[in-house]
Amino acid sequence: MSNILNMTLAQIARLIDGKVEGDPGMVISGISGIKEAKKGDITFLANARYCSLLKTTKASAIIIDKKADKNGRPVIRTDNPYIGFVKIMEYLQINKEMPLPGIHKTAVIGKNTKLGKNITIEAHVVLGNDVQIGDNTLIHANVSVRERVIIGSNVIIHNGAVIGSDGFGFTPIKGVFHKKVPQLGTVVVEDDVEIGANVTIDRATTGRTRIGKGTKIDNLVQIAHNVEIGEHCVIVAQVGISGSTTLGNKVTIAGQVGLAGHIKIGDNTIITAKSAATKDIGPNMCVSGYPAIPLKEEQKIKAYRHRLPEMHKTIQELSRKIRALEKKLG
Amino acid sequence: MSNILNMTLAQIARLIDGKVEGDPGMVISGISGIKEAKKGDITFLANARYCSLLKTTKASAIIIDKKADKNGRPVIRTDNPYIGFVKIMEYLQINKEMPLPGIHKTAVIGKNTKLGKNITIEAHVVLGNDVQIGDNTLIHANVSVRERVIIGSNVIIHNGAVIGSDGFGFTPIKGVFHKKVPQLGTVVVEDDVEIGANVTIDRATTGRTRIGKGTKIDNLVQIAHNVEIGEHCVIVAQVGISGSTTLGNKVTIAGQVGLAGHIKIGDNTIITAKSAATKDIGPNMCVSGYPAIPLKEEQKIKAYRHRLPEMHKTIQELSRKIRALEKKLG
Amino acid sequence: MSNILNMTLAQIARLIDGKVEGDPGMVISGISGIKEAKKGDITFLANARYCSLLKTTKASAIIIDKKADKNGRPVIRTDNPYIGFVKIMEYLQINKEMPLPGIHKTAVIGKNTKLGKNITIEAHVVLGNDVQIGDNTLIHANVSVRERVIIGSNVIIHNGAVIGSDGFGFTPIKGVFHKKVPQLGTVVVEDDVEIGANVTIDRATTGRTRIGKGTKIDNLVQIAHNVEIGEHCVIVAQVGISGSTTLGNKVTIAGQVGLAGHIKIGDNTIITAKSAATKDIGPNMCVSGYPAIPLKEEQKIKAYRHRLPEMHKTIQELSRKIRALEKKLG
Repeated sequence: MSNILNMTLAQIARLIDGKVEGDPGMVISGISGIKEAKKGDITFLANARYCSLLKTTKASAIIIDKKADKNGRPVIRTDNPYIGFVKIMEYLQINKEMPLPGIHKTAVIGKNTKLGKNITIEAHVVLGNDVQIGDNTLIHANVSVRERVIIGSNVIIHNGAVIGSDGFGFTPIKGVFHKKVPQLGTVVVEDDVEIGANVTIDRATTGRTRIGKGTKIDNLVQIAHNVEIGEHCVIVAQVGISGSTTLGNKVTIAGQVGLAGHIKIGDNTIITAKSAATKDIGPNMCVSGYPAIPLKEEQKIKAYRHRLPEMHKTIQELSRKIRALEKKLG
Repeated sequence: MSNILNMTLAQIARLIDGKVEGDPGMVISGISGIKEAKKGDITFLANARYCSLLKTTKASAIIIDKKADKNGRPVIRTDNPYIGFVKIMEYLQINKEMPLPGIHKTAVIGKNTKLGKNITIEAHVVLGNDVQIGDNTLIHANVSVRERVIIGSNVIIHNGAVIGSDGFGFTPIKGVFHKKVPQLGTVVVEDDVEIGANVTIDRATTGRTRIGKGTKIDNLVQIAHNVEIGEHCVIVAQVGISGSTTLGNKVTIAGQVGLAGHIKIGDNTIITAKSAATKDIGPNMCVSGYPAIPLKEEQKIKAYRHRLPEMHKTIQELSRKIRALEKKLG
Repeated sequence: MSNILNMTLAQIARLIDGKVEGDPGMVISGISGIKEAKKGDITFLANARYCSLLKTTKASAIIIDKKADKNGRPVIRTDNPYIGFVKIMEYLQINKEMPLPGIHKTAVIGKNTKLGKNITIEAHVVLGNDVQIGDNTLIHANVSVRERVIIGSNVIIHNGAVIGSDGFGFTPIKGVFHKKVPQLGTVVVEDDVEIGANVTIDRATTGRTRIGKGTKIDNLVQIAHNVEIGEHCVIVAQVGISGSTTLGNKVTIAGQVGLAGHIKIGDNTIITAKSAATKDIGPNMCVSGYPAIPLKEEQKIKAYRHRLPEMHKTIQELSRKIRALEKKLG
């Protein structure tokens, strides 16, 4: 297991900049979530909603914030227990599990490819000709990166992802229903991007499809040709973004959303799961539904939708009453 | 072709525990569905709805149940014609088409990997370090299994699937919008599971993502970190299950459904296609829609939704009539 | 970059069968879309909607139709500027970028495989036994083609696609909840088909799953066993088509649509994005929604859906007024 710590509470407190209350020499064997923790583990309480678990968790110590009641348990107090947890996870990852940099012997690297320092390219990765990859980037097994794609530094690409496949472009030409429009552009993936497993990102027709710095893309997302995604966006699993659509910075697109082509989504906007945006959406919005409208409106409409049978019944009753009134009045 | 039988009706009847009515020495060349069957084939009639095809099928013999009218055709009678068909298909598969056990020379196997007996690992499969695989498991070409993943016996994983990619976890830390939370857990795939092509199953943050014994997962399904799927579930294509959600046993999730994170779906529950469950759903339910509600309610609401234009018109008429009545009454 | 032309306007005009207005000796360095074009580029104006860009584009020359106002800019006039653009793109692709035919040394080719002339099979492709592939077909890296699949001529298959994985078929047999039904059929991909990245196409139970001539399939599409897709269809990203469903010719299925199993979609029919068809749909229709109904009806219903809160309010007002009238009338 990779969550083995074997550190004392005092050592852990030093790592996360916290303060022990309890026996600083207690040896902690591993780290776990509060529900699955077992004896010997350290865990964390980040959400006050779960504070009742503090009494029942089998963990031997808990990372808590500066105000929380420790219930007599050994604890490490720190400003932000979740960040404390992340720091321990990072320590474990760096020391136990990060793949060593290097290019696996089964990887296939095209001609004129420029590779940065300290990169990791796992088994059966295929990089096309003229690809560029920045420093410290990690490409997991079975990824395909097509010709001329440019990938920045500190990027992580998960298994099976395809970067730079042809955009989906066809046009009728004399008797050919769907003549292929050559896709001669490329894809630019900026620094600090993470791309999930089996994601597909198409190359531009001309120019580039762009994934902005720090953006995180979950598994099985489809990004069509000439899409521009800004910086620090979050694109959750199974989203589909149609051609030439642009996202600003810090946009969040929840799972299974579809975006029409040639539209703009403004900075900081959130689109809730399974929605479909069919036209431009401004910045700082939270939208939902198909077509996507402000979340509060959509929630109201959804609520009334559930009252449709009742509304229909009321309408029938009103009709009856009106007929009765009309009769009375002749 | 792999559906070539070249067996007599008598031999086939023995194989499926049935009884010939017709010439037991008739040689059957192949097996097919009732619509596509050609002369020389055997087919089956499992659904009374299709009994008219019994007269028109080009098949030379038909597997039927004990009560069906054979229409003067050569038949094999058996308790369950569909199971008879499956038995013949299994016989053909075992004798003609099952890949021979072995590890293809292009497969890349990590360190400290424990492989069971009689396993088949096809070309370009990549298994990470410390992976465990049980007996008789079949992993098709181009699959990625990441470090420390545990796979049971009699499991089938189709091409391009990714088991154990990082969960999608990020948190803001001082100036970094989306700091990666290391994903140090793993995935446990229990015995008798089948996983479709290009499926993605993420590893847990800590602990495990679990696919219970006998569960079948169709193509392009996304399963996020720390999801727990019970035994004998059926997850149809393109479903997305968000983090930490748990499914009981024998749950059926139809195609393109989305499940929110941190919810529970009870045993035997069915969620119909394209629905979205946003909160816990009890056992033995059949739910539909977004948010998913009992199917009958959703069907009723869908029906009234289609009557919205008519309802709107009625409301306008009632308004007019009321105005008229109000006028009359001064 | 692959969009480098270095041709004179006169040479380009000859290539696209157009007529120069301006200096025929002007050297054009590259080709781009009208928005991203820079000095030295040629671009095109295909849509009158964008004619204002003709004044502002940085391109040095523009391909326009025979009637458009050239605004004093150097132009090439041609009947169809978009086709002119496509012709230049094809010229560039053929001369600069098409992978050379050949089979990469890391590709794994099964036994009894029949390969046509002039085919390209990239790195880490896996072809099963008894596969057939026609002339000029291009299979990109990391594709899996399973045993006995038949692929026509001039087909393009993008990275990570899986052709011929097992159909998703299970049946309960004495105590086994989901006994696998062997999938012994195959997949037939006809000439001129294009299949996107990470697409999955399942083999038939018996018989074949068919992708008709000239059909184009976008990324991450799921096609289940025994589906029949006609000729010249367009299937956009993330569509899911359930088992045994058939599509006529020239059908368009927009992104994220789901089709139920065992239904028929008629020739030339269009299904709009994110819809779900649950029963047969005739030819020459444009349908939308879930269940899919004629687009105009669905649009009307969607519009009224947004007026639900207002309708509910009106109903309450009418109820109040009727109560008042009833009171008045005793």
